Amino acid sequence: MKLFRFGVPGQEKPGLILPDGRKIDASAFGEDYTEHFFASDGLKRLQTWASAQASTAPVVNDQVRLGSAIARPSKIICVGLNYKDHAAESKMAVPAEPILFFKATTSLCGPNDDLIIPKNSQKTDWEVELAVVIGKKATYVAESEAMEYVAGYVLHNDYSERAFQLERGGQWVKGKSCDTFAPVGPFLATKDEITDVHNLRLWLTVNGKTMQNGSTSNLIFNIPFLVSYISQFMTLLPGDIISTGTPAGVGLGFNPQIYLKAGDVVELGIDGLGSSKQQVKAYSGN
Amino acid sequence: MKLFRFGVPGQEKPGLILPDGRKIDASAFGEDYTEHFFASDGLKRLQTWASAQASTAPVVNDQVRLGSAIARPSKIICVGLNYKDHAAESKMAVPAEPILFFKATTSLCGPNDDLIIPKNSQKTDWEVELAVVIGKKATYVAESEAMEYVAGYVLHNDYSERAFQLERGGQWVKGKSCDTFAPVGPFLATKDEITDVHNLRLWLTVNGKTMQNGSTSNLIFNIPFLVSYISQFMTLLPGDIISTGTPAGVGLGFNPQIYLKAGDVVELGIDGLGSSKQQVKAYSGN
Repeated sequence: MKLFRFGVPGQEKPGLILPDGRKIDASAFGEDYTEHFFASDGLKRLQTWASAQASTAPVVNDQVRLGSAIARPSKIICVGLNYKDHAAESKMAVPAEPILFFKATTSLCGPNDDLIIPKNSQKTDWEVELAVVIGKKATYVAESEAMEYVAGYVLHNDYSERAFQLERGGQWVKGKSCDTFAPVGPFLATKDEITDVHNLRLWLTVNGKTMQNGSTSNLIFNIPFLVSYISQFMTLLPGDIISTGTPAGVGLGFNPQIYLKAGDVVELGIDGLGSSKQQVKAYSGN
Repeated sequence: MKLFRFGVPGQEKPGLILPDGRKIDASAFGEDYTEHFFASDGLKRLQTWASAQASTAPVVNDQVRLGSAIARPSKIICVGLNYKDHAAESKMAVPAEPILFFKATTSLCGPNDDLIIPKNSQKTDWEVELAVVIGKKATYVAESEAMEYVAGYVLHNDYSERAFQLERGGQWVKGKSCDTFAPVGPFLATKDEITDVHNLRLWLTVNGKTMQNGSTSNLIFNIPFLVSYISQFMTLLPGDIISTGTPAGVGLGFNPQIYLKAGDVVELGIDGLGSSKQQVKAYSGN
């Protein structure tokens, strides 16, 4: 199944993309795609509902705003430097074990929402990433069983303010957590939709120019390893997002470095997970 | 007001401590102390309810388990090295600006719940901290207005696994996010309950021996500064927790270092915010 959410920010409704590509309104299913949904076997229940109801459900047109493909999770865990070429361009060592950091869940937004450059930002950068959505509570999970805890996959742009991240006191969270820094979607593909998650092309363009063009076959730490590893340090809850890292081609890696400015357009995609597009805007509040 | 939560983990009910010290069941108020509660002027509504109903509400006896004083927030933001003496004992520089990191909200637990030493942990340590609870959504808040965004204060033990934090790949979140690593309570004291939040004694004992004995007068970055500062990097939501750092006396700072072991008893407190007590247990799962 391919799950999406649509409508006004903060009041999104659940939707489903059918095998024929039609997008339907799944509001009649009666639940948003939340921690509770995943924890209570929601994917199976949704499948049952869809088998009976999808053919007569209202269609969602392509002009409607998309929200994050899942509702706000308890946490967004990111893996740093998980592609060798990105570690090299960042002038950092390939890590001996996964580097973990969090993004504030307040950074979550729709896949095509504007990217707002934060106040006082000089170095807002992009990072196309494959994100994993957790399907059930995971604590001290063995690598051999880790995939049972995965609900599916989703496209994520892990926007990063490099000065906030690297020049403001040592921990990365400051540069990762600004509002609009986590566009997630267009849809969550359940595990069965993706034949080989470790062999997907992922790409990102800025103003039409290709900046990132990688493959998940180059992940240093693969998905079952990551799920198992993270679950040694914290409990993963249903709906939690693990973003698995970005390949080479971020603005930080160029010489001179390239950062986003108002008016830029960022597009990105992953095989089987669709694409998203963000217009870059300056912060216009007080 | 002093707000607490009590009952079975995950199904806590709201309570209030009255000025005479009686603890009452506030279930009839009809709301838990969540993001929505704080966002919808819940403190004022609770006060109104209490004025009419508290005298006849059921009393909660002292044997009942306490939960975290607030429901699971969107984030727990911690400030690192915010006391000079703690920076010195950690052999780290006094920071030029606040160091921020997150704890997973899955680490949240009741103030007197057992501290479970994680699997493979050798270096589980304590940190008594004053935590701030946010009262309304805060983005780019000026320091002069920051206190308007504070709902109140609560005692927090920022448990930390030092090997996970410092020896496992660079970001602190791994050593801060284990289950039971954030006992919060016994109660949330609203702002008006505390005369001078920057002049409170805070202390911690292990097996009755005083390990930490500090004062919030020694905070490097004070509360309005922190609220304003953090809000430059991310949006603070109602109910979010900011833990303001720990004074000297953590296990890491001793020579040789001292870490917790099963059977130890940790007690801590802050003037006006009560005290809490955790029994240390080994992880007993698979």
